[in-house]
Amino acid sequence: MEVMDLLRERKSVRTFLDKKIDDDVKDLLYEAAFEAPTAGCQMFYSIIEVKDERKKEVLAKACDSQMWLTKAPLVLVFVADNRRWNDLYRAYGLKPREPRLGDLWLALSDANIAAENMVIAAESLGLGSCYIGDVIERHEIVKDLLELPDEVVPACMLVIGYPDAKAKDRSKPRRFAKGYIVHQDAYHIQSAADHKKYYEGHFIKTDKEIDYKDTLKKFMEFKYESDFSKEMSRSARLYFAPFLKDE
Amino acid sequence: MEVMDLLRERKSVRTFLDKKIDDDVKDLLYEAAFEAPTAGCQMFYSIIEVKDERKKEVLAKACDSQMWLTKAPLVLVFVADNRRWNDLYRAYGLKPREPRLGDLWLALSDANIAAENMVIAAESLGLGSCYIGDVIERHEIVKDLLELPDEVVPACMLVIGYPDAKAKDRSKPRRFAKGYIVHQDAYHIQSAADHKKYYEGHFIKTDKEIDYKDTLKKFMEFKYESDFSKEMSRSARLYFAPFLKDE
Repeated sequence: MEVMDLLRERKSVRTFLDKKIDDDVKDLLYEAAFEAPTAGCQMFYSIIEVKDERKKEVLAKACDSQMWLTKAPLVLVFVADNRRWNDLYRAYGLKPREPRLGDLWLALSDANIAAENMVIAAESLGLGSCYIGDVIERHEIVKDLLELPDEVVPACMLVIGYPDAKAKDRSKPRRFAKGYIVHQDAYHIQSAADHKKYYEGHFIKTDKEIDYKDTLKKFMEFKYESDFSKEMSRSARLYFAPFLKDE
Repeated sequence: MEVMDLLRERKSVRTFLDKKIDDDVKDLLYEAAFEAPTAGCQMFYSIIEVKDERKKEVLAKACDSQMWLTKAPLVLVFVADNRRWNDLYRAYGLKPREPRLGDLWLALSDANIAAENMVIAAESLGLGSCYIGDVIERHEIVKDLLELPDEVVPACMLVIGYPDAKAKDRSKPRRFAKGYIVHQDAYHIQSAADHKKYYEGHFIKTDKEIDYKDTLKKFMEFKYESDFSKEMSRSARLYFAPFLKDE
């Protein structure tokens, strides 16, 4: 049950000790990622380690100005890589087709699956981690900064380091109940009453009364109707465009 | 190091013992998925358990006719769910915008990350698993079969069960070396010589000489220039279309 406990207890870490990660530990993290399941054993991703301090700052700014992440000892951008195999084919004189949306889809999956293996390995080695979804924003800046060809697209970003006391003390946010997430044999559209039941049920109850509608409204404004959320879609379209070209 | 060993040893399992998975074990698998990192704790996915035998068959056929997967005791389709939160907002009288490409991107990530947590939990419980990337094919059939609304898109499929002797004996395919996958500070386009070095280096050496170009050519024809590969992109475009509408 050690593994189940680790999965249960793992939470995002955003504040780190000022302690570097040794190279042999880093190699274990990479190995964990590489050993992840991958479509046809093709490893359709690359990992860019961002060490350069100036680059870290530009990246943090591009990620909705989350400057805290420049303090992370390890900053990794997992990119969906539909370039490597085509270059390999060409190295042997073969003529592969251009990558299209299905290829990007597989590559994004491979990248996220490998990243999650690394997150779990990190946890088992006493390291904390956090995904930065904002890496899909600011196409123009990030593509230029990381010198990404058109066939290479950021899938996710991980920051990793030893958690400080504040990070260790933070309680893990509660997840929704199984009845809200798992469907039998088909997708079932849930009733308004069920939505309220599951939403309200996932708060930790205290003596303080919660205004659920107001809490949800603020959450929606912050997470979904916000500038960064719209920027994600604008930027994503630019990354996707080359994969949507007609044959 | 128990966790590292588990990540190293985990390989895909496609042949299963005829042994059902108990409900309490299944609940541990779900819990592992739910506890995975998720964007803003929003769990932008749902999991459809396909139990119905007829549905399993239709699904296996839609997945490039991989009929073996009907023998798996547990068949789960992880769907990127950009519907649930919008329905929740509407249940409280709020008026969210329609989901767009960035939202789908986050949801696909959430789904794959949760699936990988389940894969690792399964492994720790003596269960084998396999991703079925083909679930993104045959949009018309799968969308209808699983009653997916436009805002709900298959992200990945997992089949899970107890591995049989054949599955246990199969050796895990070798991964590429770190130098081929990890880049420093920017994406570096590799030379033809490097591609050949890493490709040829990842074969297990035996006395038999390998015709690398011919091996690679056959692989490309099977994996990349094949009908199922092109079908993925055709089908993917249909799933993506609603997220690409202009405002």
